[in-house]
Amino acid sequence: MKINVLFSPVSVDELYFTGKTSVVIDALRATTTIITALESGAKEIIPVGTVEFAVKVSGGMFGWQTLLGGERNTKKIEGFALGNSPLEYSAEIVNGKTVVLYTTNGTKAITKAKFSSKLFIGAFLNITALAKHLALLNRDLEIICSGRSNNFSMEDSICAGKLISEIEKVNEDLILSDSAKASQALNKSFGKSILKMLKDTEHGKLLIENGFEEDIVSCSKLNSSNSIPFFNGQAIKLLPDSVESSQSGLEAKTN
Amino acid sequence: MKINVLFSPVSVDELYFTGKTSVVIDALRATTTIITALESGAKEIIPVGTVEFAVKVSGGMFGWQTLLGGERNTKKIEGFALGNSPLEYSAEIVNGKTVVLYTTNGTKAITKAKFSSKLFIGAFLNITALAKHLALLNRDLEIICSGRSNNFSMEDSICAGKLISEIEKVNEDLILSDSAKASQALNKSFGKSILKMLKDTEHGKLLIENGFEEDIVSCSKLNSSNSIPFFNGQAIKLLPDSVESSQSGLEAKTN
Repeated sequence: MKINVLFSPVSVDELYFTGKTSVVIDALRATTTIITALESGAKEIIPVGTVEFAVKVSGGMFGWQTLLGGERNTKKIEGFALGNSPLEYSAEIVNGKTVVLYTTNGTKAITKAKFSSKLFIGAFLNITALAKHLALLNRDLEIICSGRSNNFSMEDSICAGKLISEIEKVNEDLILSDSAKASQALNKSFGKSILKMLKDTEHGKLLIENGFEEDIVSCSKLNSSNSIPFFNGQAIKLLPDSVESSQSGLEAKTN
Repeated sequence: MKINVLFSPVSVDELYFTGKTSVVIDALRATTTIITALESGAKEIIPVGTVEFAVKVSGGMFGWQTLLGGERNTKKIEGFALGNSPLEYSAEIVNGKTVVLYTTNGTKAITKAKFSSKLFIGAFLNITALAKHLALLNRDLEIICSGRSNNFSMEDSICAGKLISEIEKVNEDLILSDSAKASQALNKSFGKSILKMLKDTEHGKLLIENGFEEDIVSCSKLNSSNSIPFFNGQAIKLLPDSVESSQSGLEAKTN
């Protein structure tokens, strides 16, 4: 099983992903938000690459079933129902709804990787569950760090490294690319306290500055979820295997 | 003094570099070759971003004064006088000559960063000399890893990390971006034996496969040079301060 990490999706084109098994990570905050929304009972998440397309997609749907969510420069977009804070995506708000989501990096990375034959969503929340699934799947893997405006993201790279180390616990025969080895090394150097690490990153500091410190706490909760979201080319849903634990999570939240 | 590292120049556009102080690294092999050629007495190196432009530039010059050098897929380009092996750029071949150089990653990175107000060339060969110069210059710095076809290069990142650590020995008040911190961590994890590290990288393995193992040895010689090449927007020459040591190097080679 070969594993490669892309520190930003900008380095390849869409066709690069054709037929591949991929994971998209945007630890602060998009992929954490997606996991949270689906665990709160959202029917599906439709990731989009532009604000214009978000409006277009949601315009063709029944308003009361669909929510527009997302951010630009960390902040909620004018006219959107929700921003990109995992905390906003509670069962009261999103249960049974379709969420059309636009974020600066994460949803762009997901739509860019849409030609993958299997495309999963990862964050610190579901590292071990996702790693076990991928190890058993035993297919060559592309881990896509959403990055920050085409540049390196420390938190996404560390999350990728942690995912690889978890896969390695189940499947020892990994062939790692240089970027995959680098991600593992970065996880060893910086990944011991995830909350501290997240707060120390450039992106973490910006979020704190803009009043989103609680979001960082949400994003730091390692293995708080067994959910594995996957993108079917149209929308992101929970992998059936992972739905049971997700639903019991929802029950716990709504009871 | 702020330091940022770009793991590939693809993440930014040319105008990003306007007015900045920059270093381009392509440890295997372009920037090592440039240092070697200038130390062997080459008058100047003209880096170009396409093979077509290399031919055009050299066509406008007197043939006997100009050499075309470079590679595609690690190998010498048909019709070119020289490839991208530092070993080819001996005083016998390049002394007094202008070299027009095209390489897959390195010369593209240099031409992309051409709007920098100061643009230096770094490799393992000149790390300490370059670090001292940059520390004394005390200007915010962009370190550009040439990367591999828009992707991450382990060897360039480690070279960047080593350069930052050397700058830190002279100037302790550094403000490092996340990518700069990551480069330092990668240098700590993998940079102890440079030759071994270079041979273990994807690029190193490809060079060995294609018969260029001796080049890797040349590229691994930490601090074997005091030369600081800089790009003036037209051509790469040695920084006057560093010429003396370079010339004594040349004398040692030719005597």
